[in-house]
Amino acid sequence: MTNGTDDLDNLIALMAKLPGLGPRSARRAVLHLIKKRGQVLVPLAEAMHRVGSTVRECLNCGNICTADICDICQSDKRNIGQIAVVEDVADLWAMERAQVFKGRYHVLGGTLSALDAIGPDELRIPKLLDRVKSENVTEVILALGATIDGHTTAHYIADQLTDIMVTSLAQGVPVGGELDYLDDGTITAALNARKAL
Amino acid sequence: MTNGTDDLDNLIALMAKLPGLGPRSARRAVLHLIKKRGQVLVPLAEAMHRVGSTVRECLNCGNICTADICDICQSDKRNIGQIAVVEDVADLWAMERAQVFKGRYHVLGGTLSALDAIGPDELRIPKLLDRVKSENVTEVILALGATIDGHTTAHYIADQLTDIMVTSLAQGVPVGGELDYLDDGTITAALNARKAL
Repeated sequence: MTNGTDDLDNLIALMAKLPGLGPRSARRAVLHLIKKRGQVLVPLAEAMHRVGSTVRECLNCGNICTADICDICQSDKRNIGQIAVVEDVADLWAMERAQVFKGRYHVLGGTLSALDAIGPDELRIPKLLDRVKSENVTEVILALGATIDGHTTAHYIADQLTDIMVTSLAQGVPVGGELDYLDDGTITAALNARKAL
Repeated sequence: MTNGTDDLDNLIALMAKLPGLGPRSARRAVLHLIKKRGQVLVPLAEAMHRVGSTVRECLNCGNICTADICDICQSDKRNIGQIAVVEDVADLWAMERAQVFKGRYHVLGGTLSALDAIGPDELRIPKLLDRVKSENVTEVILALGATIDGHTTAHYIADQLTDIMVTSLAQGVPVGGELDYLDDGTITAALNARKAL
């Protein structure tokens, strides 16, 4: 595939590596960038450069930030007692968008996986145990995905944290969900966790 | 939507403007960029910067290139007699990928459109008429999309070029296409343009 110039081919190849973009959509995106050079291409290159040079991981929780300690960890409006353990920064952002959790986070950076040889030390689990000991944490909320690896990770962490309340997100029918479209596992979980009205 | 830092929000907002990406996939892409800072983010920012500062339109045909005149227009291996008129650079790239056309191109930059107030002077049509007169062109191949605006544009150009052979791409059943999935217009066009075996 040669689209005119080496620079262009290179840019298209790099864009095609992004999740959600393939070669065809990368070509479309690059043509769009070139057409909107002033409005998109130049600002985007600058924004990437800036993010690349400023963004790093919070030393405390693993969130993405521009300082050593992220805004959430520094904030005095967040509840110190609660830590929500999430797999990834994307999950932290999802929780923040819901605007319902007022505690702080701990980003593991993945889940335990025997297949991929990811053990506790590859994740931020030792740091979590440290935090639970050194900060006045009263509850650890395991907000991990409802996958096999997520469950394994949740059980491992719960086993390590014996002196403290450990909870996990409820499983059940998603808001707006119709029973007809739900899988057996979700219906089973929702039935088992049924509540009195 | 606040995802930690202003720089990040800005980058996500810019990425979300790309065709094929929405807010959610832009967030995913940016997290991917940050994780692969060395392999993707930094090279991508540099590639964009380079393309932004070097890439321009060929003064002759409107193709994207890094010189005043593009490689295709400069090449002495291309047939001078044939010009394929395409709507956009993406269409030129599609023709080049098929590796079947050995002439040169002319990129209109759009199609005539009464609704959007795009007339011949908004497109590269006057330049096409100049090229036909000044270069030794024997055939103009209208490789425009099979849309109403494409047809309008093709007819307008054909009307302007009276002393020269003007052809257009054949319409019919696409290779690999099944009749059952084709629309009425395509079947009608294919039937009308049927060929003796």
